[in-house]
Amino acid sequence: MLRFSRALWEKGAAAGLVTHPRDLFYLVGTAQPANLLLRPDREPVLFARRFFDRVRAEAFLDDVRRSSALDPLAALLGDEPRPGPLALALDVIPAGLASKTQNALRFDEVCDYSPVLMRQRAVKGPDEISAIRQSAEIFAAADETIRHRARPGMTERELAAHVSRAVRLAGHDGHVFYRRWDACLQPEGIVTSGPNATALSGHAMTITGIGASPALPFGASDRALAQHDLLTIDIGLFRAGYHADIARSYSLGTPSAAVAKVVAAVEAAHAAALAAVVPGAPASAAYHAAQESVEDAGFSEFFQGHGDDQGHYVGHGVGIELDDLPVLGPTNAEPLAEGMVLAIEPKLMVPGVGAVVIEDTVLVGPNGPEVLSPVASEVRIIAC
Amino acid sequence: MLRFSRALWEKGAAAGLVTHPRDLFYLVGTAQPANLLLRPDREPVLFARRFFDRVRAEAFLDDVRRSSALDPLAALLGDEPRPGPLALALDVIPAGLASKTQNALRFDEVCDYSPVLMRQRAVKGPDEISAIRQSAEIFAAADETIRHRARPGMTERELAAHVSRAVRLAGHDGHVFYRRWDACLQPEGIVTSGPNATALSGHAMTITGIGASPALPFGASDRALAQHDLLTIDIGLFRAGYHADIARSYSLGTPSAAVAKVVAAVEAAHAAALAAVVPGAPASAAYHAAQESVEDAGFSEFFQGHGDDQGHYVGHGVGIELDDLPVLGPTNAEPLAEGMVLAIEPKLMVPGVGAVVIEDTVLVGPNGPEVLSPVASEVRIIAC
Repeated sequence: MLRFSRALWEKGAAAGLVTHPRDLFYLVGTAQPANLLLRPDREPVLFARRFFDRVRAEAFLDDVRRSSALDPLAALLGDEPRPGPLALALDVIPAGLASKTQNALRFDEVCDYSPVLMRQRAVKGPDEISAIRQSAEIFAAADETIRHRARPGMTERELAAHVSRAVRLAGHDGHVFYRRWDACLQPEGIVTSGPNATALSGHAMTITGIGASPALPFGASDRALAQHDLLTIDIGLFRAGYHADIARSYSLGTPSAAVAKVVAAVEAAHAAALAAVVPGAPASAAYHAAQESVEDAGFSEFFQGHGDDQGHYVGHGVGIELDDLPVLGPTNAEPLAEGMVLAIEPKLMVPGVGAVVIEDTVLVGPNGPEVLSPVASEVRIIAC
Repeated sequence: MLRFSRALWEKGAAAGLVTHPRDLFYLVGTAQPANLLLRPDREPVLFARRFFDRVRAEAFLDDVRRSSALDPLAALLGDEPRPGPLALALDVIPAGLASKTQNALRFDEVCDYSPVLMRQRAVKGPDEISAIRQSAEIFAAADETIRHRARPGMTERELAAHVSRAVRLAGHDGHVFYRRWDACLQPEGIVTSGPNATALSGHAMTITGIGASPALPFGASDRALAQHDLLTIDIGLFRAGYHADIARSYSLGTPSAAVAKVVAAVEAAHAAALAAVVPGAPASAAYHAAQESVEDAGFSEFFQGHGDDQGHYVGHGVGIELDDLPVLGPTNAEPLAEGMVLAIEPKLMVPGVGAVVIEDTVLVGPNGPEVLSPVASEVRIIAC
């Protein structure tokens, strides 16, 4: 918290207010409804908006008070003119709440604390890495469920339901958190097959499936799996505050020669991207490595999408939210650092042939990548 | 959409921009990434930010264009000064995005369209009521799972996992949508038992459970169920764009005399609240009816919470979001109208005894309430 506050004062903020449950959990260990007030040269104060006893028991800091209103915070800030902006999470808190907060605390301006916080969050400590390891382990239950349950005639929804139970039993806490305001994901992730897996739909991911209705246009649909389908699961695994993000594709029966070429190209791209995950390498290197690999294989027009909708990334950080920093995109020169945890997810979406992804959650170790996913980085064949 | 636009112009807005996926789904039938521009005396224009073909296929309106940028929208609005504010969903879109949008479209001010839209959404049409009916039906699978699976020794998490699969198979689309920016709910809802059900924790609900970690402090924990527990499920059932919201409590074995008194008080409060659900009655009537009923039973200090944390509501609208209008609170004089769909949820949380809730999804019919929940409004005893 101290490092975060210092960075805010260096940026010129006169105070900070943290109210986003994910940010509170990261900074003070509670996700209860609360307001954390940060001031230069003062100890932080946490105001429980409800459930004072629980907030006090959970929070890492000493000064916990009780108020759902902002008046006591304004009083602490005093009557003097504010010498700079109030730092808020302008990327996540609603515009109306930001205005109301700014007025109640009497600031002339606000600034966004999220770039500072997200950069700090990108490098994980030992406890965080351990938590992500445990989240990644849950994928074994999803993989086993698919290998044992998936068969022609079963719908995507049915398979998703089985995965949902399996991952919940294996430790998934049942919700996935995005920082993006308009993104969400079912706890079983994206379960999609055949032509649905090459459709372009929904938010935030590339292989999204089409969902069961236009109201939720991603994830499992009511399509029945068919012999020779390619089937994909892409899942956010959330346990005890931390996410892993893993995806695999499966072939229902022996893949055709056309599918086998796509599979080989994704396996090569995945290996190439992984090899670029070393401390000090630019975040863009993994993207370029994968992109060059699929170009060599003749598939660049199907890399991370197709047509007008190709995504310009090959991965991203994971942690408190599924979409942590850094983004592994073509122009991100930011160096990778030891302790970052990344989802590396090259994929090809070839309409008429199928979609293939291999996504692993990967720790940037001192000398290179350590894959945290509990199952092999390959496309599996399900006999049927 | 026409009614919504007209109300915006009556409020003085010079234009409206809709970008929230739930609002887009309600107004134009698609939840894909898109921007809907509304102007007085002009046809609405929908800009697909991605996936143009799919947006065009799904949307109810004719003029669908392709742009992720806001420049073409600014061009449509022209160079003249704006004669009023830009209407945005200030309760849901992030502050940073609102500022960026305001600047790109060159408005001096913005206003919140959500009160207008939420009021309109409160009264459902026949297709919407039919959709909510189908969502409510899913609860039968949750109820059956609990009655057949719950037994001493099983953890809340295990039971939640079984419910999760059952409701997904029965048609739940796997995610629950809130309008509140900081609320979320697992697809199996809140599964909580014993002392966890009277704990005060988390966001947006009264009987919340404590969750499996401080990172997600509501929903199922790893506590094992015990003989004589009271067990509660409170679940948002989402299918094809519409929610129902239903809760039941169960007794593991014959309830004690103390528990039986709480159960009887909640059953009476539920009946009293339901009787107040008639067109033209103020939204507050159901609250007062339930409150007076529990007061007569001597339980008012445990109504909708306890101690410093009693909730001041006995229900709310359900629909596109789980927390639609109206709020059935003590001061809401707004009259109920035929076609509203309400979650009626009186509950008592008595520390040391247990928590009991009966929540039904209820249609305001021409002469009174029609309960849409597929199982009886009673607390069930699970023999064990």
